[in-house]
Amino acid sequence: MTDGTLTAEQIITAAQDVLRRYGPAKTTVVDVARALGVSHGSVYRHFPSKAALREAVTQRWLDESHAPLMAAVRTPGPAGARLHNWLAVLFAAKRKKALDDPELFATYMVLVAESSEVIERHLADLVGQLERIIGDGVARGEFTPVDVRATARAVFDSTVRFHDPVFAPDWGKPGIERAFDAVWDLIHAGLAKR
Amino acid sequence: MTDGTLTAEQIITAAQDVLRRYGPAKTTVVDVARALGVSHGSVYRHFPSKAALREAVTQRWLDESHAPLMAAVRTPGPAGARLHNWLAVLFAAKRKKALDDPELFATYMVLVAESSEVIERHLADLVGQLERIIGDGVARGEFTPVDVRATARAVFDSTVRFHDPVFAPDWGKPGIERAFDAVWDLIHAGLAKR
Repeated sequence: MTDGTLTAEQIITAAQDVLRRYGPAKTTVVDVARALGVSHGSVYRHFPSKAALREAVTQRWLDESHAPLMAAVRTPGPAGARLHNWLAVLFAAKRKKALDDPELFATYMVLVAESSEVIERHLADLVGQLERIIGDGVARGEFTPVDVRATARAVFDSTVRFHDPVFAPDWGKPGIERAFDAVWDLIHAGLAKR
Repeated sequence: MTDGTLTAEQIITAAQDVLRRYGPAKTTVVDVARALGVSHGSVYRHFPSKAALREAVTQRWLDESHAPLMAAVRTPGPAGARLHNWLAVLFAAKRKKALDDPELFATYMVLVAESSEVIERHLADLVGQLERIIGDGVARGEFTPVDVRATARAVFDSTVRFHDPVFAPDWGKPGIERAFDAVWDLIHAGLAKR
């Protein structure tokens, strides 16, 4: 590969591979450059520091989980069904990542812990998506009128057991689906118009 | 102290002090015996192993948090107020422990992680207390008829951010009270009779 054609996306992909192979503690910018067959200066031209590159990898990993969620936000129809779908898609995506490749998941947990700004923006985006669905539900007369922003945050917080990676060890246990359904029933009843 | 008068309670109290002083990694049964001025054999007569002694310390720590909760369970009156009180007391107790003495809290986190059976029994007790309050609420016609056991579990799960020690770092942050109130409003609306 010649330096002139090297894109940020290619560097992020290579960094992902290297992180998977060496783990977050041992990966260096030189390793990433070597995997691409370029000098480390070429990598630094796109990412001013190792931290910036790691943040970009984290950002992409989080963005990947957004695509199916945005589909749940945009799908027309009753807000209750859309909200259930959104929460179920989020849980399924996190769970799949945690159970299918626990080592890579652990790597990302290390990266995420380093990037509090990236993760805070990500969480704000997710709560914003919930706001859209809940706002629509109120506008349709399907949900009871509430402080939409506070309620979106409450829905996110009350389902934390099904999306926060600290609970990943529980996600393969029997009964976890039933627990999800019970929490859904409770919060859905809390939202529904009386 | 003579061995004949030594009680299990005294040993647990001494073990608590020693754990606080030396930390969970360094504390031995010999240290506990020395603090009491007895032989380690006297300690082993009450607790067959170091693990058994540590479990007893964990058990007492968890039991201490039960007393004010049981008061909330037993107080007469509307189930909604009792449930709110129970959740607020649990959150306040955990938060006080975490913020007032973070080092001792960290020690207990290590102990709790060792005793999965003790902690599971403890969690089942807590969910059982929620069942009593929710069952009363249904019987009074205050809460909508539900599967009381599943709903008790859902209330516990949906408030996990306000009682699971993994979230202790959030408990001193601004906005945490408001987040608790928003989750409470959501689940209370979910329980209330239509």
